[in-house]
Amino acid sequence: MTTLYSAVMSRTPDARASQTKQIQQSITNVEKHFGEMCQLFAAYVRKTARLRDKADLLVKEIRIYAETETPHLQRGMKQFADNLAKVQDYRQAEVERLEAKVVEPLKSYGNVVKIKREDLKTTQSARNREYKQMQQLEKMRQRNPSDRQTIVSLPFSFKRNGIKLIYSGH
Amino acid sequence: MTTLYSAVMSRTPDARASQTKQIQQSITNVEKHFGEMCQLFAAYVRKTARLRDKADLLVKEIRIYAETETPHLQRGMKQFADNLAKVQDYRQAEVERLEAKVVEPLKSYGNVVKIKREDLKTTQSARNREYKQMQQLEKMRQRNPSDRQTIVSLPFSFKRNGIKLIYSGH
Repeated sequence: MTTLYSAVMSRTPDARASQTKQIQQSITNVEKHFGEMCQLFAAYVRKTARLRDKADLLVKEIRIYAETETPHLQRGMKQFADNLAKVQDYRQAEVERLEAKVVEPLKSYGNVVKIKREDLKTTQSARNREYKQMQQLEKMRQRNPSDRQTIVSLPFSFKRNGIKLIYSGH
Repeated sequence: MTTLYSAVMSRTPDARASQTKQIQQSITNVEKHFGEMCQLFAAYVRKTARLRDKADLLVKEIRIYAETETPHLQRGMKQFADNLAKVQDYRQAEVERLEAKVVEPLKSYGNVVKIKREDLKTTQSARNREYKQMQQLEKMRQRNPSDRQTIVSLPFSFKRNGIKLIYSGH
């Protein structure tokens, strides 16, 4: 936030406007792509879960078939089924991990983007307020050129997010 | 076939009937379970292919997003996309291999089972024919006890699958 604020505040009005636009585009870009990646990762997780389910059925069927076979083949088939079942356990771990470490964080970016947008608005209105104050100051200067020195050295302050910011020059 | 034939032919009529039944059950069992395993493996392959498709979309989206980002993040994202794409190449190989080495051979067992069933029928009818011939022989013996020695030493033959089989005693 401090970065956003100082980036927007430290330039000429035109540069500020262009930078604000750039930041807005950047936010919109992240919002769009993170949203799509989130959906695709979620779909990837779902497909993985379905593959796991199908493999579980396969494991079950192989075990049933093994029961009907001669001891030697039975042992081999059961081992195969056990190993295939272990692969499904890993797949289950994959599903849980992707859900917790990728899909959820990407989802929560929805909120991050919202907060950043509000930040930007707050910063913009602060900037506009400052700009108006500057203009008023300029008018006062033009009206009373003799007070110039006094006015320039007068610090002005405004409140932003509960923190009092003091501008002592420009 | 030779094994089936000799297994069925080498016992008393009751033992033969029970053995034929056992072979029939074994064939039915394999037919049932191989059919189900074939379907499940095919479904597993399909789900794997769908997972691959979804991951391909994800790779595409990550690459699009990477294009909009700063160089450092862009490089990292592109590398991630490349690696994820490689995993999908392996998945494609998995799909092709499972299709060729597991699903197709299991499918072809449908024909193997059919042929085995026909074999069993041929063997059974050969057995029945033999049994009738034996009965006729026995009748002839009982009618002419004096010819016993001659009849026993006479070989009898029948054709099976184009091969002439000669029985010289029992």
